[in-house]
Amino acid sequence: MRVLGVDPGLTRCGVGVVEGAPGRPLRLVAVDVIRTSSQLELGERLLAIESVLEKWIVEHAPDSVAVERVFSQHNVRTVMGTAQASGIAALVAARRGLPVATHTPSEVKAAVSGNGRADKEQVAFMVMRLLRLAGKPTPADASDALALAICQVWRGGAASRLAAAAAKNGARR
Amino acid sequence: MRVLGVDPGLTRCGVGVVEGAPGRPLRLVAVDVIRTSSQLELGERLLAIESVLEKWIVEHAPDSVAVERVFSQHNVRTVMGTAQASGIAALVAARRGLPVATHTPSEVKAAVSGNGRADKEQVAFMVMRLLRLAGKPTPADASDALALAICQVWRGGAASRLAAAAAKNGARR
Repeated sequence: MRVLGVDPGLTRCGVGVVEGAPGRPLRLVAVDVIRTSSQLELGERLLAIESVLEKWIVEHAPDSVAVERVFSQHNVRTVMGTAQASGIAALVAARRGLPVATHTPSEVKAAVSGNGRADKEQVAFMVMRLLRLAGKPTPADASDALALAICQVWRGGAASRLAAAAAKNGARR
Repeated sequence: MRVLGVDPGLTRCGVGVVEGAPGRPLRLVAVDVIRTSSQLELGERLLAIESVLEKWIVEHAPDSVAVERVFSQHNVRTVMGTAQASGIAALVAARRGLPVATHTPSEVKAAVSGNGRADKEQVAFMVMRLLRLAGKPTPADASDALALAICQVWRGGAASRLAAAAAKNGARR
């Protein structure tokens, strides 16, 4: 299973592709951060994000897209931009017929570190370990995008197995 | 000047096109509400909104797009969807090279009724009056989209005149 993780944001939008399956080693396919200038109009920033996400989906052919679920934060202006960037990720995925999964930050932290309250450092450390990288991915947005993708590989896999088991069970009745 | 007003929302997204200029009568070109089912995935809903907005821009050829500026509200889930739908409007406008103006709800209310705290009824009444309609546009999302477009025709016009005057003044120096 190949997952494109997106840590949404207007100024920095983390993107990371991870390949793997539950119980098997994970592999880093690609990671980057899409940056857009705050000098640009909102629409231009969203267009730039859309264009890079389209390119990544074509180039890396993920099976699904995982996006961080946005919550209200202290800074209302930031959360609006985050919501808008996450909407673009959902739009691009839907256009390509890809399923989109959303995970909360604590689900992602728990998935990669076993602790839903892990800090950024710990998440970056575990991403490095799990993907057997030489160093921690930076900036945090890149690391978070990879953690999201890992979370989806594992949870998505578990969800698929549960669905398959339920289907099998249903068929037996 | 022809303006497409968008009152963003996932469940109901108001769209209205108004033609006019400051000091001249306004004309209703078109109004509707884009509805998407909450049963659909977020990406599918955003795709549907994108598709209708694209069609409206092609069909009605507005000079600019006016979108309600989203603020934090009580219901975090609603505000996320609103922000995402407004992002799609900004994206589609930018793709077509159209300027996007954002106005706060109180700016819009003040523009059409003289009162920044006017209620929905009063806004709908003034939209009906200003566009010389036989009845109030319904639902409120349709009325709000038209009010946004009217606000932009007037404020955008004033801004253009100020910019033109400033340019003229600058040229004289």
